[in-house]
Amino acid sequence: MAPALLLNGDLATVKPASTTGRVSSVYSEVQSSRIDQSLPLPSVLKNPFKIVDGPRSSAAGNPDEIAKLFPNLFGQPSAMLVPSAEGGLRSDLKLKIGVVLSGGQAPGGHNVICGIFDYLQDHVKGSILYGFKGGPAGIMKGKYVELTSDYIHPYRNQGGFDMICSGRDKIETPEQFKQAEETALKLDLDGLVVIGGDDSNTNACLLAENFRSKNMKTRVIGCPKTIDGDLKCKEVPTSFGFDTACKIYAEMIGNVMVDARSTGKYYHFVRLMGRAASHITLECALQTHPNITIIGEEVAAKKQTLKNVTDYIVNVILKRADLGYNYGVILIPEGLIDFIPEVQQLIAELNEILAHDIVDENGLWKKKLKDQSLKLFEFLPRAIQEQLLLERDPHGNVQVAKIETEKMLIQMVETELEKKKQEGSYLGEFKGQSHFFGYEGRCGLPTNFDATYCYALGYGAGVLLQSGKTGLISSVGNLAAPVEQWTVGGTALTALMDVERRHGKFKPVIKKAMVELDGAPFKKFASLRNDWAINNRYISPGPIQFVGPTSNAVNHTLLLELGAVQN
Amino acid sequence: MAPALLLNGDLATVKPASTTGRVSSVYSEVQSSRIDQSLPLPSVLKNPFKIVDGPRSSAAGNPDEIAKLFPNLFGQPSAMLVPSAEGGLRSDLKLKIGVVLSGGQAPGGHNVICGIFDYLQDHVKGSILYGFKGGPAGIMKGKYVELTSDYIHPYRNQGGFDMICSGRDKIETPEQFKQAEETALKLDLDGLVVIGGDDSNTNACLLAENFRSKNMKTRVIGCPKTIDGDLKCKEVPTSFGFDTACKIYAEMIGNVMVDARSTGKYYHFVRLMGRAASHITLECALQTHPNITIIGEEVAAKKQTLKNVTDYIVNVILKRADLGYNYGVILIPEGLIDFIPEVQQLIAELNEILAHDIVDENGLWKKKLKDQSLKLFEFLPRAIQEQLLLERDPHGNVQVAKIETEKMLIQMVETELEKKKQEGSYLGEFKGQSHFFGYEGRCGLPTNFDATYCYALGYGAGVLLQSGKTGLISSVGNLAAPVEQWTVGGTALTALMDVERRHGKFKPVIKKAMVELDGAPFKKFASLRNDWAINNRYISPGPIQFVGPTSNAVNHTLLLELGAVQN
Repeated sequence: MAPALLLNGDLATVKPASTTGRVSSVYSEVQSSRIDQSLPLPSVLKNPFKIVDGPRSSAAGNPDEIAKLFPNLFGQPSAMLVPSAEGGLRSDLKLKIGVVLSGGQAPGGHNVICGIFDYLQDHVKGSILYGFKGGPAGIMKGKYVELTSDYIHPYRNQGGFDMICSGRDKIETPEQFKQAEETALKLDLDGLVVIGGDDSNTNACLLAENFRSKNMKTRVIGCPKTIDGDLKCKEVPTSFGFDTACKIYAEMIGNVMVDARSTGKYYHFVRLMGRAASHITLECALQTHPNITIIGEEVAAKKQTLKNVTDYIVNVILKRADLGYNYGVILIPEGLIDFIPEVQQLIAELNEILAHDIVDENGLWKKKLKDQSLKLFEFLPRAIQEQLLLERDPHGNVQVAKIETEKMLIQMVETELEKKKQEGSYLGEFKGQSHFFGYEGRCGLPTNFDATYCYALGYGAGVLLQSGKTGLISSVGNLAAPVEQWTVGGTALTALMDVERRHGKFKPVIKKAMVELDGAPFKKFASLRNDWAINNRYISPGPIQFVGPTSNAVNHTLLLELGAVQN
Repeated sequence: MAPALLLNGDLATVKPASTTGRVSSVYSEVQSSRIDQSLPLPSVLKNPFKIVDGPRSSAAGNPDEIAKLFPNLFGQPSAMLVPSAEGGLRSDLKLKIGVVLSGGQAPGGHNVICGIFDYLQDHVKGSILYGFKGGPAGIMKGKYVELTSDYIHPYRNQGGFDMICSGRDKIETPEQFKQAEETALKLDLDGLVVIGGDDSNTNACLLAENFRSKNMKTRVIGCPKTIDGDLKCKEVPTSFGFDTACKIYAEMIGNVMVDARSTGKYYHFVRLMGRAASHITLECALQTHPNITIIGEEVAAKKQTLKNVTDYIVNVILKRADLGYNYGVILIPEGLIDFIPEVQQLIAELNEILAHDIVDENGLWKKKLKDQSLKLFEFLPRAIQEQLLLERDPHGNVQVAKIETEKMLIQMVETELEKKKQEGSYLGEFKGQSHFFGYEGRCGLPTNFDATYCYALGYGAGVLLQSGKTGLISSVGNLAAPVEQWTVGGTALTALMDVERRHGKFKPVIKKAMVELDGAPFKKFASLRNDWAINNRYISPGPIQFVGPTSNAVNHTLLLELGAVQN
C-alpha cells in the first residue's frame, strides 16, 4: 500500500517550502525551452534612434472636457522612434522605474516587464526596476520588490502574472493619489509603467496628470493588456494576450469539432471568455469555422431578443437535420446576455427588486416586474431563474457573468425543437454538450507573437520613460510585417479618451473597442457563416507551436484589421 | 452593415457542399504540417523478419471457462517478430482486409488504419483495405468504403475517427454473427482489424472464434484503443490515445495552475474524463503537481464516503489557509462517485425506485430509501439531488456520468468551510471554480508518441493478418526505448480474459486495468502529494509540440510502469 494515506496523511509533518515563487527546476520541458528563447527586437530598437513628436493630439470625443480633466497633458503629441545616427538618449542618468500589473491576466505580461528590464540593462546600466506587488494596491501600500536578472529569469516567455501578481484596485481618490505620491517619492521614481486594460490605462493617465501637476518627476507610461482584445486603436493595433488566448480556445474548439464530426450526435455549445466585447468569439470563429457564432454586438445592433437568438440556432439545426447532420458546434460570447436589451431591462428590474424587496417563495415579487420582463423571466429555464435570483455580487447585483449562457441556450433550443418534433417538422435528434473555455486561456504560455510583441512594448516603454515622456501608451505597430519592421513609439492616452457622465460628473474613459459590424473581421465572418452553417468547414488549429514554420502565425482579426490579408 | 443578416439570412439559398469529408485545403497550418510528417517504424518492421511463436497461453482467470468459450482459440501462443535474413512472408497472395473503429474516439485511430494500409502497399501490393463505417454496425449492415491512398491521405496524423467514424454497437447475438459472416463472405475478407477498448477486443476475439469455428478464412486482429488507459497488460503496455488526451488535459490544468497562483483567490476543481479508471487523473497529476488529487481506486479500496473525501479537501484548504494560500487546484476523476460504495448503493436504490414508483413532489418516495442512503441523499446539494432524479438514460437509469461531481464537491466543501468559519477555525476565503475537461481531449491531433505507436500497431496488425494469425491483439512493446528498438508482435486475446457471471451465464471479459495502488505511478504520486498539497509545485506542461526537443516526451505512467524512470 502507498506510503501516504489519502485521508489520514498527516499534513502537519510536511514542511512548507521556503520559497513559493517559481523554481525552474520544476518546469516542464516546454517551459524550460521557452525561458532561454531569445526574442527578436524591431530594428529601430537595435540601432541608434531619435524620438520624433507628431502633431498636437485631441481626444476621441469631447476634447473640451478632456482638456479640463487633463490640463497638463491634454494635446500631447504622439512619439515615434526613427533611426538616427546622431540620435541616442543620455545614458549616464540612471533611472528608478516601477512597474505594475493591473486587472485580469493576459499571456505576455511577464515579457513586458522583461522588456523594460532589458532596456534598462542594455541602455541605462545601473538603473533599478521595482515591481509593485498585487496590482495598484502595491503602489498605494508601498509593497514592491526590486527586480533583478535572477528574479525575472524564470518568468521569461512564461504565462501568468505571478512574478509580481496583479490586482483590481484603482488609484482614484485624493487619498489614494496621495499614497501613490508618497511611494513615488520614497522610491525616488523616475517612472512607472502601468500594464493594464482600458480602465487601468485611464487611471495611468490620471496618475501621470497628477504627478505632473505636483511637479513630480515621476512619469507614467501605459501598456495595452487584455485577452478580450477591446483596447485598441489605430496606433495600438491590438492588446497583448488576445493572440494567445484565442489560439488556446481555438485549439479546444477545433478538437471539439473533430469530435462532433466523428461522433455525429452532439451539438457543442461553447461559451468563450470575453464579457464586454465579442472579439474572442469572432476570432475563434475565423480560426475554426463553426456552424453557428453569436456576436454580441450584432445582437445588440439588431435589438434581438433571446427568442430571436434561439430561433436562429433552431433554424440552422433544422436545416442541418434535413441534410443529415445531427451535430454541430456553436460559439457564444460570455457577455451575450449583456447585449440583449430585454435581458438588460430584466436584470435592472431584478437588481431593484432584490435591493428593496423580499423574494417570496410564492412568487408575489414577480408582480413588480414589467410585463415584458415577466414574460422573459418565465421563458427562461428554471435553473437560470434561480441563478438570477441567488447569485449576487457583494453589491447585491445579479452576477451576470455566472450565468451559464451555453446551458441556458441548450435548454431553450431543446424546448423549441421538441415543439417542432410534435409538429412533425423536425425528425432529427438533438443532444447538447456545454463547454466554457475561460481561465485556461488567460495564463497559457504566450505565443511567439505575444512574447515578441510584449517584449517590444516593454522595451519601448523603457525608451519613452528615459526620454521623459509621460501619459503615453506604449505603441508598437506595423505588426503584419516581420518583427524587424515593427514601429515603436507612444500615443497620448488623452487622445484615446472620451468622457462619460457618472453620478453627475464627467469621468474620462477609454472607450472599449467593440466588434465593428462594418470592420473587416466581422465582414469576412458574415460573408462565410451561411456556408459554415450548412456545410462543415471545420478547421482544427491544433496546439500552439513554438518552433517550426507554424509557430509565427498571427491572429486573423489583427491581419484583417491591418488589411494584411484579403477580406 | 454586413452582407448576411444574423437572423434572416436565407439558409435555403446556401448550397450544400458536394463533399462532406475532409478537404485539406481548409486545414490549419499545424494540421497541414502533420499530414506529410513521415513516421519512424521499429527496425524489425523495416528489415526482413520472421514470426516466432511463444509458449502455449492460458487466461487471466478461470482458464477452464475461457477454454470452453473459445474452443478453437484458447491456448494460442503469442507471436513476436524477430529479424531474420531468411524470413519474409509470401507476398504474391493479395489480401482483402477490413478495418473498423469501435467505441469512443482516441487520438491516433487514423494512424492505425494508415499503418495497415501502408503495410499492404509496402508488402502485399494489390491488396484491398475496406473501412467499415460507423463502427461494428457497418460490418453487420455491410456499410463500407474502399480505402485508397487518396482517401486516407487527409487523415494522416490527424485526430478524430471521422475517416470511417465509429459506433458502439456490438456483434454478439447469433443473428449478428450471421450478418458479420455474410459481409465477410461477400467481401471475401481475409482479415479484419478491430480497433477498440476492452469490450471491443473481447468481441473481436468472439468473432475470431466464430469465423474459425465456421472454417471461414477471415482472421481477426484487435488493437488497443482508449484514452482512459485501462486496456493494458505486460504485452500491451498502453492503449493509444491516452498519451495525447492526458497531455491536452495537462496543458489546460497547467494553465489553470498559473492562473490560480497569479490570481491567488480561486480553488479550481477540475473533473477529468475517464469513467471506469482514474489513470488520466493520475497521469495529469504526475505531469502538473496539483494540490489535491482524488484517485477513485484509492477511495474504493479505503471504502471512503463522500464526507471523507470532502473532509480531506477541507483539511488541505484549512492548512493552506494557515500558510496564506487561498487558492489551489484539485483534480477529480469523472467516475469518482462510481467508486464510493455508499453512492453506488444510493444509485442502485434510486434506479429501483425510479423504475417502479412515482417520485412525488412531497418526497414520500424517500421513505423507500434505506437509512444510510437517505442520509447521503439529504447530504447532497439540491442541484445534484435533482440531477439524480431527472437525468436518466434510455433504460431509465440514473445518468451518473452527467453528475457534475466538481460542482457537487465545491458546494459540499463550501458548506463545511462555512461551519469552520463559524467555529473560528477558518479565516480564509474560499471561491470555487469548476471545470470539466473531456471532449476536447478525445480528438486532438495525436502526439508524436501516439502517432508513431498507432502506425506501428497498424503496420504490425497487417503482418499478423498476412501471416495467418487470428484472435491476437497487436502488441508493440519496449516503448521506453527509441522507436527503432520497439518490439512488434501479437498477444492471444484469450490470454487477457477472465469470465464474469451475467444473467446466470459466464461471459468472457478483458478486465479493465485499474490504477494499482502498489503500482509505480500511484506510489510516486502518493510519495509526493503531501508536499504538493501544501507547497506549490505546479508544473505547466504547455501545448503539445510536434517538432523540436520537447516533442517526443512519453507520459509518466508508461515510463514508470516500464521502470524507465526513477520511481
